[in-house]
Amino acid sequence: MNYAVIMAGGAGTRLWPISRERLPKPALRLYSDESMFQIAVKRLSPLFTPQQVIVVAGAGHTAVLSEQVPEIPPENFIVEPEGRGTASAIALTAVHLAARDPEATMAVLTADHFIGNEVVFREAVAAALTAAEDDCLVTLGITPEFPSTEYGYIQQGQVLREIAGHKVLEALRFVEKPDLERAKEMLQSGDYSWNSGMFIWKVSVILDEFSRQMPELFDQITCIGRAVNTHAYAVTLGETWPKIRKQTIDYGIMEGARKVVVIPVAMQWTDVGNWNSLKALLPEDARGNTIRGDAFLLDCDGSLIVGAQKLIAGVGLEDLIVVDTPDALLVCRKDRVQDVRKIADTLKAAGRLDLI
Amino acid sequence: MNYAVIMAGGAGTRLWPISRERLPKPALRLYSDESMFQIAVKRLSPLFTPQQVIVVAGAGHTAVLSEQVPEIPPENFIVEPEGRGTASAIALTAVHLAARDPEATMAVLTADHFIGNEVVFREAVAAALTAAEDDCLVTLGITPEFPSTEYGYIQQGQVLREIAGHKVLEALRFVEKPDLERAKEMLQSGDYSWNSGMFIWKVSVILDEFSRQMPELFDQITCIGRAVNTHAYAVTLGETWPKIRKQTIDYGIMEGARKVVVIPVAMQWTDVGNWNSLKALLPEDARGNTIRGDAFLLDCDGSLIVGAQKLIAGVGLEDLIVVDTPDALLVCRKDRVQDVRKIADTLKAAGRLDLI
Repeated sequence: MNYAVIMAGGAGTRLWPISRERLPKPALRLYSDESMFQIAVKRLSPLFTPQQVIVVAGAGHTAVLSEQVPEIPPENFIVEPEGRGTASAIALTAVHLAARDPEATMAVLTADHFIGNEVVFREAVAAALTAAEDDCLVTLGITPEFPSTEYGYIQQGQVLREIAGHKVLEALRFVEKPDLERAKEMLQSGDYSWNSGMFIWKVSVILDEFSRQMPELFDQITCIGRAVNTHAYAVTLGETWPKIRKQTIDYGIMEGARKVVVIPVAMQWTDVGNWNSLKALLPEDARGNTIRGDAFLLDCDGSLIVGAQKLIAGVGLEDLIVVDTPDALLVCRKDRVQDVRKIADTLKAAGRLDLI
Repeated sequence: MNYAVIMAGGAGTRLWPISRERLPKPALRLYSDESMFQIAVKRLSPLFTPQQVIVVAGAGHTAVLSEQVPEIPPENFIVEPEGRGTASAIALTAVHLAARDPEATMAVLTADHFIGNEVVFREAVAAALTAAEDDCLVTLGITPEFPSTEYGYIQQGQVLREIAGHKVLEALRFVEKPDLERAKEMLQSGDYSWNSGMFIWKVSVILDEFSRQMPELFDQITCIGRAVNTHAYAVTLGETWPKIRKQTIDYGIMEGARKVVVIPVAMQWTDVGNWNSLKALLPEDARGNTIRGDAFLLDCDGSLIVGAQKLIAGVGLEDLIVVDTPDALLVCRKDRVQDVRKIADTLKAAGRLDLI
């Protein structure tokens, strides 16, 4: 059986004040009346039914996600007691799926990205499921649209095969977020994709890689895996999980994996990571302003206005972000959106827990 | 008897969204927990008791003002059915006072100005009351602190007398708001005061001037004055007032008056006309930010943050005005505060009457 695994653990503090600790980032309704999680599950159909969707989320977050998409069976929610990095979350999911079906193939997907062309997305995942039959680790690469310094890159080698019009290439190397010059070089060379963080592989194959490259994690996760579907599960997870070291799948597995391939896709893919990336997804008026809610702007340019219940009036604003919520208001220069995280951090440090 | 007449008719649309049509500007609590009206009445003591304070305000505004200062007897509130300019409001007050006491002297004062030194203010008004005994029109001039282009000026002639240390000078000419160059010249010459809009005169003297210079208004107001304290008052006022032409005391009386003197005063006087002038009255942090309410600022400079019930977080703001109220939020560049008026106008035109 094929499974879609939605990693729903993102915190999204750069989207404060709409993002809060009690809500995982995928649960936010940012560019639609539906949450990013609801959109992510919908776009899987008909490739995966809700029964084939596995959700990995923090303990405090599964309830709201389950409420948003009640079609997903409760047993398909896997709780991470606390964030231990993507490698650990994927390994935990792998042992769960292995307990269901040792022959399972899993597609590790995200819910905090915008995908413009859902048909292309599904076709690419379908091709990746076929490619994964060769016991390789498949990654979806995003054909870069501009020299981003916000994404990691994957260097591509030769074309290995073609599946339903999708090229499957050798993945030579994972590259961290580059500086602008390096990003331009990579874009121009045509040999690189953005690293989407979406991976497709057989459960057996990824468990072999964990065993080979991350033996400590493999032992811990095997121990948890043996308890799956038993009364001992909660205790075993609670005892083992805190000992697991934080590690990402990119460093822990992908960089040293034996057989990695990449399928480049062009599907309008954006990490909705901060207010600027959200703004880029929403329509603009003639002066580049983006408005959600009730606003009146006089001589404003390039600004994002997100309202809640009240009227927002702007005069002479340039490249400003205004986000109003019932209990907190953010006003931020557009070139400082990365620092919104610091607001949330400072509020936390100051004990203003109601606001984060 | 001496009376203090507080002109409380100001609309203050440039202070939107705190200022609203249902509230006269003096009723706003802007720089203190007390309203500007409450402050204005308090600073008159002990020169004038509440029984000596007359308030001129719009029909919809007397209730809130009376509530704020219940010590003022209800009969001391004079209603302007609608704004017809300062000349008409002063003439209306004069006939009311003449009915009480033909020998009365009135000090026409404002409530929408900040006065830093209240002792000096009272001493100057006391001196002006003495000067007015000579049957002249006395104005309080403000010794200019900078070349303002927002205030009118009064050109001073020779010193006529001195009262308790206050010079009484001949007032030669009233000058409209100048451009910057002209303002600098006037400041440097030392011969000019700012026109404070505060006037002190005998009721009989100002009525004589109305009779001489504004005979049409004088006739209308005499007609109303005859009805004061009779059952016919409301009907007479209602019939006569709408026919009165709008006119200011400066144009209508002061420029052509026979015997005008000016008493210059240095007492930290500011028209609280817009968000910048309010900001100038409030304390600043080391980076020039002014905060009222609950705010957290990261790398902000020169900004004014006025909160209501919620936290306001600012990131990277420069010279920005943020004013939050329960049903409307203003975000405005500091050099555009004069255009806040346009927001209120546009909302009115759009029928958003709940917000203005």
